[in-house]
Amino acid sequence: MDAYARDQTYAVPGAPLAVVLARDLGDVVAAMEWAHVHRVPVVPRGGGSGLAGGATAVDGCLVLSLARMTAIREIAPRDHLAVVEPGVITADLDRAAREHGLMYAPDPSSHEISTIGGNLATNAGGLRCVKYGVTRDSALGLEVVLADGRVIRTGGRTVKGVTGYDLTGLFVGSEGTLGVITAATVRLRPAPAEPPVTVLATFGTLAAAGEAAAAIMGDGLRPSLLELVDRATLRAIDEWRRIDLDPDTAAVIIAQTDGPDCPARELVRRCTDAGAGFAAASTDAAEAAALLDLRRLAYPAAERLGNCLVEDVCVPRSRLPEMIRRIEDVADRRGVRILTVAHAGDGNLHPLFVFDRGLAEPPPHVQAAADEVFTAAIELGGTLTGEHGVGVLKRPWLDAALGAGTRAVHRQIKQALDPSGLMNPGKAI
Amino acid sequence: MDAYARDQTYAVPGAPLAVVLARDLGDVVAAMEWAHVHRVPVVPRGGGSGLAGGATAVDGCLVLSLARMTAIREIAPRDHLAVVEPGVITADLDRAAREHGLMYAPDPSSHEISTIGGNLATNAGGLRCVKYGVTRDSALGLEVVLADGRVIRTGGRTVKGVTGYDLTGLFVGSEGTLGVITAATVRLRPAPAEPPVTVLATFGTLAAAGEAAAAIMGDGLRPSLLELVDRATLRAIDEWRRIDLDPDTAAVIIAQTDGPDCPARELVRRCTDAGAGFAAASTDAAEAAALLDLRRLAYPAAERLGNCLVEDVCVPRSRLPEMIRRIEDVADRRGVRILTVAHAGDGNLHPLFVFDRGLAEPPPHVQAAADEVFTAAIELGGTLTGEHGVGVLKRPWLDAALGAGTRAVHRQIKQALDPSGLMNPGKAI
Repeated sequence: MDAYARDQTYAVPGAPLAVVLARDLGDVVAAMEWAHVHRVPVVPRGGGSGLAGGATAVDGCLVLSLARMTAIREIAPRDHLAVVEPGVITADLDRAAREHGLMYAPDPSSHEISTIGGNLATNAGGLRCVKYGVTRDSALGLEVVLADGRVIRTGGRTVKGVTGYDLTGLFVGSEGTLGVITAATVRLRPAPAEPPVTVLATFGTLAAAGEAAAAIMGDGLRPSLLELVDRATLRAIDEWRRIDLDPDTAAVIIAQTDGPDCPARELVRRCTDAGAGFAAASTDAAEAAALLDLRRLAYPAAERLGNCLVEDVCVPRSRLPEMIRRIEDVADRRGVRILTVAHAGDGNLHPLFVFDRGLAEPPPHVQAAADEVFTAAIELGGTLTGEHGVGVLKRPWLDAALGAGTRAVHRQIKQALDPSGLMNPGKAI
Repeated sequence: MDAYARDQTYAVPGAPLAVVLARDLGDVVAAMEWAHVHRVPVVPRGGGSGLAGGATAVDGCLVLSLARMTAIREIAPRDHLAVVEPGVITADLDRAAREHGLMYAPDPSSHEISTIGGNLATNAGGLRCVKYGVTRDSALGLEVVLADGRVIRTGGRTVKGVTGYDLTGLFVGSEGTLGVITAATVRLRPAPAEPPVTVLATFGTLAAAGEAAAAIMGDGLRPSLLELVDRATLRAIDEWRRIDLDPDTAAVIIAQTDGPDCPARELVRRCTDAGAGFAAASTDAAEAAALLDLRRLAYPAAERLGNCLVEDVCVPRSRLPEMIRRIEDVADRRGVRILTVAHAGDGNLHPLFVFDRGLAEPPPHVQAAADEVFTAAIELGGTLTGEHGVGVLKRPWLDAALGAGTRAVHRQIKQALDPSGLMNPGKAI
């Protein structure tokens, strides 16, 4: 059962009573009714790729895995939608959609191992968010099993609809604390006609890189990806892979465009105008893959250095350079190695806090550094988590992020839908 | 007080106890606290342009008008957002944004008289939705006064954020039944660099017009407007304004593009390929205005014929032609004149049911026709209301549209946030 008790974080799980490997709606209803009658907590889970401890088992719980509900029930090409079960792997849905000339846009970095159900539960983001929005923006309707085993349907197959409260939006991102998603109708989009063009730009200062990102977004260009990799991350990658890093490089921007709403030459021009030392576009697929690797190598490069606390703050776009500066300052003062990559177009940063491999969880000075980073994000008008969720790991900061009044409303809604408090207790709110 | 007791519908208001013309947050809190203590129902309202009876007064209520809270507190050009009070007229915000090269995208047809607060309360749509989404897609954060006078803040200034439940999305579209929105942080977007290009196409059959709309959306073109006007509407406009209507025209499509993601020639080509009798693009502003007038004249042309029941069903895009055929069938069988215009790119139809000017509300055979139209929309996988809201007028169909289980969840949420049931009673859910 241990494999089903944890996600990708260091959050220490309790001991589950049992694991249910649901195969259909009936299994989920049976499990929820049983748990309701016997007052057993339920921890739903998808692929277990979460980064906030949202699927961490609690003592005596039923772990309810949706990972075996993997049917893509329908792809409706003319209506640009799919009806899927929660265990469908995110990238599998995208591949299935592409057979119809469509795509499933949300692409968390975990998309080859994460499930749609988990993506919905956490309102997952990804690289393409900057153009296509987060998972909630692709959720049209849900089938949900409530805490007492009742089954409801929300939303539907239309792109607009205001019949009643936005229950779809409420369940998306609720991290399994309000119900279990057993099916979803999700929006597909026409796949881009041309392969993407990739742009790489290097900058001598963070401010210049931030300026380039702001100029790109500010001028209404619509890149399909706009990532920033900071100096600490570049150094870690260079130490490992020898990328011939110019020591004067403070940050790189990697961008992609997949359509005429964002000519690559305009991306290059904005970077050059902002003072890039180097900026060029490539249509070569191998070269594009190599450039994207620079972004993808951030996590393994950090993990090579030790255990990692992966964080996920989001600030208003204009505050991105300031936020990175604050992170660098925290790293210096606290003596913590922090590698930062950012979905720059969304102001969403992932600082990776490296700590000793021998430790099961971040030591106090790393926790203190993370605490300072959260506080800085909130001070800059930002939030604790842009796309990973609250889980168990971020709950200590909820009062600072939301305020007592808003937290009380969260609890009122939780109490209304799960009065016994059995759905994924101790998570999200 | 009568002027503050009703919206644009025939819904018969009760007699309010008083009208509060709030000027600031303190006024709203004072009113809500007083109403809470004295158990007086509160009916919040904005511009009174609603089309579902959502702002209709009930007997003995406090009407709480937000129309005098008109400050645009902030426009943050680099973060593409504005902070506004609820009484700001929708078009005024758009104009203010344009001074910074930005736009406020949601544009309900009432945008010169409707308020942002009302737009948020109903999750208003509009013509530009097809490209830029509905009001909820532009809502980043809210300040809300709850039923007992408590003030909370939801969301924030970031484009991504998963800290807690999506309360912003929940309050948007809740039609004043959960709280009163006293400020909003809304997303602005870069204004298009070029003036729009307008396309007109005429079709001999509805199927061909539907095929053109499907082809445009299916190929990933992103028109900023894609409207369909049916034969009944064209005839009514022709009788009034003599537009030299070809009697063989079953429908026209009016489209606009505002960017390189949707070349006008591609719009024309899709219409021609689908069998348009005429299809052409115009960059002339006066001509574009004349073409859009064809769409805008639908309402006055219908009102010229009598009183109107304005409806608002939404179906999956591919079912649009079938839905129009069903409406025509209902009109024939029931002997009711129904004019239909549609936001074709979204599958959102507005059938206008004409009835005798001497009647205060639709007579039974018109109600029966509307009932058949709602039933048809639900049968086609659609919904009761795409953008106008439920108000009082659509509540009789909620069971058919949502099912008892989903309605129960609505009531549980309402009960949690407004246990005394004082917020806009009898509306929305």
